[in-house]
Amino acid sequence: MRFTTDTSSDGVRERLFVLGEIPGALWTPDGTARPRPLVLLGHGGGEHKKAPAVLARAHRLVAECGFAVVAPDVPGHGDRPVHEEYDRLATANQARIEAGAEPAPLLAEFHALVARRTVPEWRSVLDAVQRLDDVGAGPVGYWGVSLGCGLGVPFVAAEPRVRAAVLGLGGALASAEQAARITVPVEFLLQWDDERVPRAAGLALFEAFASTEKTLHANPGRHGDVPAFETDGALRFFTRHLG
Amino acid sequence: MRFTTDTSSDGVRERLFVLGEIPGALWTPDGTARPRPLVLLGHGGGEHKKAPAVLARAHRLVAECGFAVVAPDVPGHGDRPVHEEYDRLATANQARIEAGAEPAPLLAEFHALVARRTVPEWRSVLDAVQRLDDVGAGPVGYWGVSLGCGLGVPFVAAEPRVRAAVLGLGGALASAEQAARITVPVEFLLQWDDERVPRAAGLALFEAFASTEKTLHANPGRHGDVPAFETDGALRFFTRHLG
Repeated sequence: MRFTTDTSSDGVRERLFVLGEIPGALWTPDGTARPRPLVLLGHGGGEHKKAPAVLARAHRLVAECGFAVVAPDVPGHGDRPVHEEYDRLATANQARIEAGAEPAPLLAEFHALVARRTVPEWRSVLDAVQRLDDVGAGPVGYWGVSLGCGLGVPFVAAEPRVRAAVLGLGGALASAEQAARITVPVEFLLQWDDERVPRAAGLALFEAFASTEKTLHANPGRHGDVPAFETDGALRFFTRHLG
Repeated sequence: MRFTTDTSSDGVRERLFVLGEIPGALWTPDGTARPRPLVLLGHGGGEHKKAPAVLARAHRLVAECGFAVVAPDVPGHGDRPVHEEYDRLATANQARIEAGAEPAPLLAEFHALVARRTVPEWRSVLDAVQRLDDVGAGPVGYWGVSLGCGLGVPFVAAEPRVRAAVLGLGGALASAEQAARITVPVEFLLQWDDERVPRAAGLALFEAFASTEKTLHANPGRHGDVPAFETDGALRFFTRHLG
């Protein structure tokens, strides 16, 4: 793990790093080196480790909860090179959707393909980051919606260090089987008028989690319209389960 | 409005009152007489103004938010005499359910009947309580699930002073039409495995609210299993909209 920058603002230290082929960002509270909860943020499609929404969320988790936060770039995003196979598939899918195909199954298949790579990558990111003095082996949370849900469900299912997850804007098509292996508390965000994920598919994914504590937060609006107060809710959820 | 008792504990003043035929309880913060937000609590079936869940919720709204809280007894509940017509109907419904009838339509019809009486009663309670120096004409919220939802939807639809409502554990059968007249923010609680309200009916009631801000919180479990953290959520919801 190689750090490329190390800066600080408003009590939040930000280090960009490269771990093998994976570029990522790590945020920690300035100061004391002690073990603390760690949240891994999975960004959305077309976003990256320092997209405004990711950055804002990371800063709040550090400043308000005292957690460490890490966000890796997904292959083909941020500082990573174009991934030819994914790129070809995405272009082909776009053409099929324009020709009238249902987007949901194509998206689900694509997420499942990418997850076969990101699950081991993210596990190695946890390994590396938890070796740092100011992160340590505390409880881990996961936050990711949309692409971050498609990749997050298999990650949370596979990684026993994850003790609580905020997921959402995803459907059951690709991930119901893995969701059924998730038993940690889940807060699941659903947009009632999501133009990309059919409502029934979102409800079915919520249904699929084996967690005894899972809570569905549904709000009106389209895929991109998750209300700001859900970030407050997510912070409280993580505080309750990791804090 | 006649007060029958006036006590105080842990900074929360409790006054029991009778307004015409309506017995009720009013909780306010000890001390300063100034206008403040007021939450009307509608209790559940078989409960009353001082049922443990109602009391606990009232104390938190006063102590943590500084609000005033009022809870009237529903006819046939608490300190009110048995209401012969309702009682006869409830007994007849119980017999029909035992003979295999669907409970939801019977319950919905019953709630609609009782609401024709409680809506004007609760409006007169607001009138009386808001005349007090330590309540005043601040913004009003409504909290009620189950019976409190069946009676609350028509109340919130009819009463322009209500600016935010927590509702839930109710279905669309009786109240979809009135729900469509509600435009204030709504937090709606749904139990995923509710044995009394079919899931689709609960989702349909959430769908029916005309509010641009409405948020559905669904949790696993039966009718009576709403998790304790939803009370925290309701407090924050009221603080956001009335505070």
